[in-house]
Amino acid sequence: MTGPCFIFFFLLLNLLPFFRTLEASHCSIKGLPLVRNIADLPQDNYGRGGLSHITVAGSLLHGLKEVEVWLQTFAPGSRTPIHRHSCEEVFVVLKGSGTLYLASSSNKYPGKPEEHFIFSNSTLHIPVNDVHQVWNTNEHEDLQMLVIISRPPIKVFIYEDWLMPHTAAKLKFPYYWDEQCFQVPQKDEL
Amino acid sequence: MTGPCFIFFFLLLNLLPFFRTLEASHCSIKGLPLVRNIADLPQDNYGRGGLSHITVAGSLLHGLKEVEVWLQTFAPGSRTPIHRHSCEEVFVVLKGSGTLYLASSSNKYPGKPEEHFIFSNSTLHIPVNDVHQVWNTNEHEDLQMLVIISRPPIKVFIYEDWLMPHTAAKLKFPYYWDEQCFQVPQKDEL
Repeated sequence: MTGPCFIFFFLLLNLLPFFRTLEASHCSIKGLPLVRNIADLPQDNYGRGGLSHITVAGSLLHGLKEVEVWLQTFAPGSRTPIHRHSCEEVFVVLKGSGTLYLASSSNKYPGKPEEHFIFSNSTLHIPVNDVHQVWNTNEHEDLQMLVIISRPPIKVFIYEDWLMPHTAAKLKFPYYWDEQCFQVPQKDEL
Repeated sequence: MTGPCFIFFFLLLNLLPFFRTLEASHCSIKGLPLVRNIADLPQDNYGRGGLSHITVAGSLLHGLKEVEVWLQTFAPGSRTPIHRHSCEEVFVVLKGSGTLYLASSSNKYPGKPEEHFIFSNSTLHIPVNDVHQVWNTNEHEDLQMLVIISRPPIKVFIYEDWLMPHTAAKLKFPYYWDEQCFQVPQKDEL
């Protein structure tokens, strides 16, 4: 290794803990104000085009143990995967409209889902373990919802289509928005 | 008992199950559409001037077991009692502004509370068992919030003032908006 390159590498090694602190800093409730402006909270699409996700009040981010609240915005045409989870989920639609697809978990595979129109100022909840998908089927407007779940952080089973057997659905845990904070070793603080 | 009076009494007795069904009908999820317009949900002030409470998604009303969601509107000057509960609670402020008073549960009595300004598009959560009060201290505008709690139906301990010992706080259960549906005997459906 040549001299300048070695110095650069050495500097980088010494800066690593600093970057790690930066990365982890938004994963700790310490120093967060009690009242937070939702407009200042981090938002991301987590690699899913047309999505904006904000964890308004979360398990890994804010220390909640029993509930978690998200603000999610779906651009026209965008949607969640077909999925299920063994927790309660309530939607409060703030803006726009779309379609909820819902299938029971009592057969071998979901099968053709029911279609429910969802609209601004409507609410619904998903029965525990029922397979569902939210789709912004309104071409002209964003769909914005507050999403409330129990038993955070969420464990999601994802289906490729409505004919995939429940046993073949793929577990995604930690879920995309929990990945970064889930990886921070909690034991360091003991 | 005179004749006509007896007939009236007899008729009333026969009508009782009908009235009971009417009263109980909004306490059962049966027949409710999956997607509900929040504007169509029952709202009441439960005897508290300046309050509008709507159970958006509830334990007794909609069969939820782990979370419950309320939409509450406080007219200028109106407020919750000083209270605590052993569940998680998240506020999402939709409109207006006000003050959250918050005191820890670690001393014998709450004592002088912290004051936190809450405002439209802000969020906060109340630590389990901390004593708190929400007050619309804005003279010009309603304060509207979505309230999310865990472990429904809620058990509330009410304080007369901030110097009342925690042990003297008075349990109110079922809480005002749960009273009517809580009294319907669930075992009749077995």
